[in-house]
Amino acid sequence: MTTVPDKERLPAQVGFAVEIDKLKRVLRRNTLMDGSRRENDAEHSWYLGMLAMVLGEHAPSGTDLDRVTAMLLVHDIVEIDAGDTFIYDLAAVEVQEKAERAAADRIFGLLPEDQTAAMRALWDEFEERSTPEARFAKALDRLAPILANHHNEGGSWTRHGVTADQVMEKVEIIREGSATLGEYATEIVELSVARGHLARSRS
Amino acid sequence: MTTVPDKERLPAQVGFAVEIDKLKRVLRRNTLMDGSRRENDAEHSWYLGMLAMVLGEHAPSGTDLDRVTAMLLVHDIVEIDAGDTFIYDLAAVEVQEKAERAAADRIFGLLPEDQTAAMRALWDEFEERSTPEARFAKALDRLAPILANHHNEGGSWTRHGVTADQVMEKVEIIREGSATLGEYATEIVELSVARGHLARSRS
Ligand SMILES: [Ca+2]
Repeated sequence: MTTVPDKERLPAQVGFAVEIDKLKRVLRRNTLMDGSRRENDAEHSWYLGMLAMVLGEHAPSGTDLDRVTAMLLVHDIVEIDAGDTFIYDLAAVEVQEKAERAAADRIFGLLPEDQTAAMRALWDEFEERSTPEARFAKALDRLAPILANHHNEGGSWTRHGVTADQVMEKVEIIREGSATLGEYATEIVELSVARGHLARSRS
Repeated sequence: MTTVPDKERLPAQVGFAVEIDKLKRVLRRNTLMDGSRRENDAEHSWYLGMLAMVLGEHAPSGTDLDRVTAMLLVHDIVEIDAGDTFIYDLAAVEVQEKAERAAADRIFGLLPEDQTAAMRALWDEFEERSTPEARFAKALDRLAPILANHHNEGGSWTRHGVTADQVMEKVEIIREGSATLGEYATEIVELSVARGHLARSRS
């Protein structure tokens, strides 16, 4: 399509690359598995890319795992402007969505036009969860903190007073992406309750 | 090949996932672009995956960019055991290589056998640099710190007394992966010298 020589596209591409370095400074609520510090969005995104490689066989057959990986690498970039929202803080979700769309406009807009559109399409696909790829990607995004909290004596669940009922809503999202991973997540949530690392309910 | 049901493979896969969380705690010599702290291997690997997406058009035509991304996500995992080597510390390189092979055996070995082989093949391919995919992946791995130091007034070059002659050896590796990126890297090295952020030579 484009007739711009490769080299003339580089300044915009590098401008984007310099900008997204900031994702390494966006902190999430959960910690690393050893509890030593809070996780940042960049290392979280790497981790999800690895989960896509390692757990890809649990996606519905025919799922394009390369697109899953691409979506996962890109999905949190909007948080450079919009920050992280704790997924149990429902009031913040709507405000957050608006901020994220503005962030997508600005940050993906740094790229050459065709790449702006491609990145935006990946991000929209992830958010809309209407393809098997997006549902599997979202499942991994929801599975990661459950794995981390399960391996860290309750981790951010304990700190933020999250209950098993609430976590099971996230497990439903996992199940929509992968029946096997949904079943597995249910088991480890039950185990976390049994070990006293996750309260059954608020009462 | 395997007749093991999906679900029985999960404990080994999750064991690997729990293990590689440690990559977030392996620190590199260079800092984030804003100089605020040292970069870790996990966020670095995410960054390289993003560079593969954004700069992929500068790879030789026919390069399988999805395999480039996969290699980049996996390539530093061995440093969980073997640590990071500063690429200008030549004496350490041989000892490091042995440690990295042992690490690959141990860490990839946590996975089900077919996945151990697949991960190991990706890592070997990256290390051997005998395919266009591996050469392009290595080019991005060498480009990232040059970009970071260029945007951070010399960064780890200044701190470790690295000279332009030494950086140009790394640029040669970039050129082998991508002519366009090699040319671009040469230009920003020259710019860094002109700005006084990189010494021409040790004399
Ligand atoms: Ca592919």
